[in-house]
Formats: sequence, C-alpha cells, structure tokens
Amino acid sequence: MLMPASHEEVVAWLDDHAGVLSSEDVEVEHASGRVLAAPVDTPKDVPDGPVAAVDGFALSAQATVGASDYNPLPLRIKRAGEAMTAADVVPVASGDRLPDAGADTVIPSYETEPRGEVLDIYAPLAQGENVIAAGREARRGSRVLEAGRVLREMDIAMLIELGVGSVFAVRRPEVGIVIIRGDVADADGPMIRALVARDGGSPHDTRHRESEALAGVFSDYDCDLLLVIGGSGLGSNDHAPAALDEAGEVVFRGVAIRPGETATVGRIGHMPVVILPGPPLAALFAYDVLAGRAVRRLAGRPFDWPYRSHRATLTRKIASGLGRLECCRVLVAGDRAEPLAVAEHRTLSTAVRADGFVLVPPQSEGYAEGGEVTVHLYDEY
Amino acid sequence: MLMPASHEEVVAWLDDHAGVLSSEDVEVEHASGRVLAAPVDTPKDVPDGPVAAVDGFALSAQATVGASDYNPLPLRIKRAGEAMTAADVVPVASGDRLPDAGADTVIPSYETEPRGEVLDIYAPLAQGENVIAAGREARRGSRVLEAGRVLREMDIAMLIELGVGSVFAVRRPEVGIVIIRGDVADADGPMIRALVARDGGSPHDTRHRESEALAGVFSDYDCDLLLVIGGSGLGSNDHAPAALDEAGEVVFRGVAIRPGETATVGRIGHMPVVILPGPPLAALFAYDVLAGRAVRRLAGRPFDWPYRSHRATLTRKIASGLGRLECCRVLVAGDRAEPLAVAEHRTLSTAVRADGFVLVPPQSEGYAEGGEVTVHLYDEY
Repeated sequence: MLMPASHEEVVAWLDDHAGVLSSEDVEVEHASGRVLAAPVDTPKDVPDGPVAAVDGFALSAQATVGASDYNPLPLRIKRAGEAMTAADVVPVASGDRLPDAGADTVIPSYETEPRGEVLDIYAPLAQGENVIAAGREARRGSRVLEAGRVLREMDIAMLIELGVGSVFAVRRPEVGIVIIRGDVADADGPMIRALVARDGGSPHDTRHRESEALAGVFSDYDCDLLLVIGGSGLGSNDHAPAALDEAGEVVFRGVAIRPGETATVGRIGHMPVVILPGPPLAALFAYDVLAGRAVRRLAGRPFDWPYRSHRATLTRKIASGLGRLECCRVLVAGDRAEPLAVAEHRTLSTAVRADGFVLVPPQSEGYAEGGEVTVHLYDEY
Repeated sequence: MLMPASHEEVVAWLDDHAGVLSSEDVEVEHASGRVLAAPVDTPKDVPDGPVAAVDGFALSAQATVGASDYNPLPLRIKRAGEAMTAADVVPVASGDRLPDAGADTVIPSYETEPRGEVLDIYAPLAQGENVIAAGREARRGSRVLEAGRVLREMDIAMLIELGVGSVFAVRRPEVGIVIIRGDVADADGPMIRALVARDGGSPHDTRHRESEALAGVFSDYDCDLLLVIGGSGLGSNDHAPAALDEAGEVVFRGVAIRPGETATVGRIGHMPVVILPGPPLAALFAYDVLAGRAVRRLAGRPFDWPYRSHRATLTRKIASGLGRLECCRVLVAGDRAEPLAVAEHRTLSTAVRADGFVLVPPQSEGYAEGGEVTVHLYDEY
C-alpha cells in the first residue's frame, strides 16, 4: 500500500534540489524570454547628448516666444550643417543629435508645414519639448534591468540602444524525458515536452520499453532534471521506481495529490528525478505540481502556478477527500465557476472541456456552493 | 502637416484586410499552440470498452459487499487471462480493458496490499469506481474541440488518445519585416520579430538602407502582412510612405496615437502594409495597436490586447491630449497604479520600468487621481 508524502513535503524537497542554474552569455538579439542572471547597468549616458524625440525641426524655444495664430513667426529652414542662428530651424529625424547652435527644442513635422524655406510658428514651444535630454533614457552606471528579469521584447530594444551586445542569462534547464511505452500510443510525451518548453526548459526525450534495463537508461542521462513518464504505479509492470532505486535513490514513493498519487520523486547523484503517472490527466497534474515548478526554478523564473488566477463563486459545491491536494476542473462564466462532475475526475476530457481548475488543499473537504474560490485559468487570455 | 486618421478607423480597415488565413494539415505532435481551423469530432468511442482509471485490481463490486475492517473479504488474485470468478481479482494497469468476466470496478494498488495470492478487501466498493466507462472520455461523433481553439498542451494528449494523427490548423501568418537602417544600431528589428512570434506569426526580416529603391523592395515581398520599420516620419529621409505609394497604396498617412503618430497603413495588392515609426517606444505602441492585432487576426487567435488586464486606482492623475489614443506607462503595486512621468513619454525606458500601461482614448483628457483604470500588464504572470 502506498503511503504518499504530502505534496508540501515533496515540493520542499524538490525546491532544495532544483535551484537556479548557472548562467551563460547570450546575444541580446536572441535573449527575448530569457532570464537575466545578473543585473544590467548602463555603460554610458543614453542618449549621449540631447536628441530629437520625433521627426521635425530643431529650434530655440526662445525664438517662439510671442508666436500665435495672429502673429505667426516665420523662421528660416537651414540644412543640417549650415550655420544656424537663433531665428533658424534645422530639420532633424528622431534620434538625431540637436545641432549645437542654440537649438533646445523640436517642433514635430506632423504639427507643421514648411512654406518653401520658411517655417511659420503659430504657438510658443516650451524649452526641451520633443527632446530627449542626455542620459534621459539611461544614465551611465544606473541599473536598467535587475537580475531575475524575464526579458521582454522591449528590453531587447533597450539593451541594443544601450550598446549592450550580450547578457548573462540563466542557462536553459536540460530536461530529460524517458517515455516508458506500453502498447498504447504515447499521449503524454508531446504534452510533457510542450509543458517543459512553456516553463523555459529544453526537453530531450527518448522512448523505452518496460522490458528494458531502465536503471541503465536512467543513469545514462546527465541533465538538470529527469522526468520519467509511465511505470509509476504498483502494477507488476511498474518497474520505474525500482529502476530509480537501483540507479539512485527513491525519496518519495507516492505523493498525496489526486490525480497523480503514484508520482515518485528521487534523485540520481545531483539530478532530481520525477516519475509521472502514465494516465494523461495524472501526468498533467503531477507535472504541474511537481515537475513544472522545478523546471521554472532551475530556469530562474517565477515558479508559482503558471496560470492566470481568477476569483469566482461556485455554482455547486466541490467535495474533496481529506489528506491530499485535489485538482477540480471547472467551467468559468464571468465571476461564476461550475465544477465539472467529480465522478469524471480521471478523464482527460474534463480538463480539455474546462476553463481552469480549483485546488482543494489536503486539510479541506471542499468548498460549499456559493463559496468564493481561486480558479487557475488554462488559457493565457 | 499630418492629418492622422483615428485609430478606430485604421483598425477597422486593417480588420477588413486581415482575416483569418487558410488552413494546413499539422501533425498533432507539433500542434501545441496552433489554432484549429476546423472542429474535431471523435472518430470512435474512447475508451472503446471499460478501462481501469488507475493501476490496481479489477473486481466485481458485488464481491465487496459487507467488507469492513472487522470483516475483511479475502479475494484471490488471478493473472490476466486466467479464468476469473466473481470472487477473484485481476491486476490491471491504468488504461487496461477490464477483464470480461464480471469485473466492473477497480481497487487502486495504492489503497491495498496483496498478501501472496490473496487481496483483503476492507470496505465495499461502488460499482464503476476507478473505471472509465466506454465512451466516457469521448463519445463517437461528439465534438471534442471547436474551431478557433488555441491548442493547449493537454489537447495534444487528448487528440492522440482519440487516435487523431493530424488536424487542420490555421496557417501561420508570414510576416515580412523590412528594416530601414539609418546609421544607428537596429534596436527595433529583434523586438518586432519577437512580438510577431508572440502573436503567432513567422517573421522574415531583411535590412535595407534608406537610399535603396524601397518600392521595389516592398513589391518583392509576397506575404500575409508587411511591416516596415523606420522611415515613416516627415523628414527629408522618410521615403517609406512614398515608396509604398509607388508600390501600392497609402490608405492612412498618420494615425492618431501617441507615441506613433507617423505610423502609415496601406497595401500592395492584397497584402496589408504597416509602416512603423523608428523610435522604439513608438514602434512598440504602433505595433501593438495596429500590427499585432492584424497578426493575431490572420492567425485566427483572440485579437484583443494580448496582455492581462488588471483594475487599479490611480495614485496621480493622467493628463492626456484630446483626439488621440495615448499610452501611459504605469507602475503597479497591488490595486494601485502610479503613472510614470508624462514628460518622459518618448523614452523607451519608461516602458521598461513600467509594469504595464493605461490607454487613454481620444475623447478623454485623462483620468483623475483616485480614478479606477484598466492596466494592461506587460509580464505574463
């Protein structure tokens, strides 16, 4: 009989054995979505002098004092490089340095219309309008991005503007996936591979038959985390835990989660190993509770549940057993959540039909109708 | 002088010219994240007969009536294939068909412990417990997934269980990106490429100098959407709109958004074209308002803002100009949002520092301190 460990205990052990990985140098162009291993400080003032924030004409704000619809001030358009006086304007493109000769302000092209060599100004401009002052984007030595940042697309543009060519990013976790094939199609492998990628890992999978010498298969892996799919049960064919025990150490045989009770956790040397149950719904939930979190921790990412949470009121009660973490799939309509039939709780189709799930902790027997719960939403938006 | 069109007008035109693409056959194994172009109906009952939902022992529920801690019922363990009577149990792995001879229920291995050839039953079992009945996952002919579904990881497992080998998925939008280089580093290209990928498109970019014959460059593209970065302004070097006019048609010269006023939209034949301003913050916002939505529409995805929204109270007022859609970056702490200085509104660093942004519509002059606003959050979680 399985004496499953509490999920808190197993998660705590995995947390201890899945710390953030070392870093590697990554070209900024390819760093979107990567996690910074070290902060980035600005190597120089950006911009290094005042630049135009928009396409337009650089001028001295002083020259526009008194301009109005009744008193347009005609300023002369000079070419860049020509000698400029305080009554002249010079065309500039966004990002161009302002000409030195007294220009401190830019009037946007889209707000004006040149009349031959003359630009009529109809309103005074404030000094510095449409100008990015030296160091305004980033001041030399200032911190632009903190360690742990999951780099946004915009960060890449920022780093390029700063002249930063590469960053220290956390290495992508290499996740070995051993798929133990029975006679049925492998429904789990592609799902787990996609989940590992979602969590920032690089999945590497191989398929093996239960009859193989699995201990040797496991030992051949040298990665940051090893996932074994299938063969976790107590049937006579469930050799995976025995093989793990032979190759390394089984630390937890069974975890108090439903579905997913037969999940097994241990290690081979420093490599943590999670054996996931074969039934897809159990594999999914055990992955999410145990393995996904480990992948995200190794990757240096936020490691809580990677689902949007949403508060909702239950339209029916959820009944749950004491002593284990249960996953109840629900339909969501606005701020109401409808539990899907508990009797169906072993079918993957309940998750496919669901909008999300409610976790019922071990110390709870469920939630009453009308109770407010947190739903984790499966879809991103 | 630019007479920008309202963003609503431009978005409506783009919506008309960026409908969902045709479909292609995609192997299920590689379909995670793809969008279904057609619904999937179940080709057969799954399972096709009752199967064990967990590893354990199949038995007849009838044989467990009267079992208790004081009256354990010893049942004989037969091997699969051996003749079975109503007082026997047969080991089964999850997913196995129940043996025909009267077994209707499964007792999980993790709740029991064989004693040699005998299994002691300590409590009655309900008929059908831990069994997935025929057609319970999916009934032949029933709809499993609707068209438009963005396939989840779990859907892949479900499709494999159904024996579905490939699906009709919406073709990935091919998005051409023409980067017009000035003398500065190309900060926009990698950012826009990553955003296109986020929105489900396949980016293809080439770099060109402003001095090139851009109309020919544009005409050479044959893709679902063409993005041109830079050269949208009114400076003397801003040839992109003129080149678009030569190669096809400029429909909107300027869009009433800030930043991003000089964005230009048109088409070459059936191919919609969006010219994004070069300054990265403007490129980002114009991409998000105009181009990203078009990519998501082409891809058949939900095309609203691809950011989590969050209600928050403003700690300071937001002042905005009438007549244009403005993007105000904010810091978020719990349910409070702090606008970042408006004076900095042309610097990318304000977005990098921000947690998200508030949209101020054209007909609004902003929001008062204490007002409740919707923040679009940049980070996923």
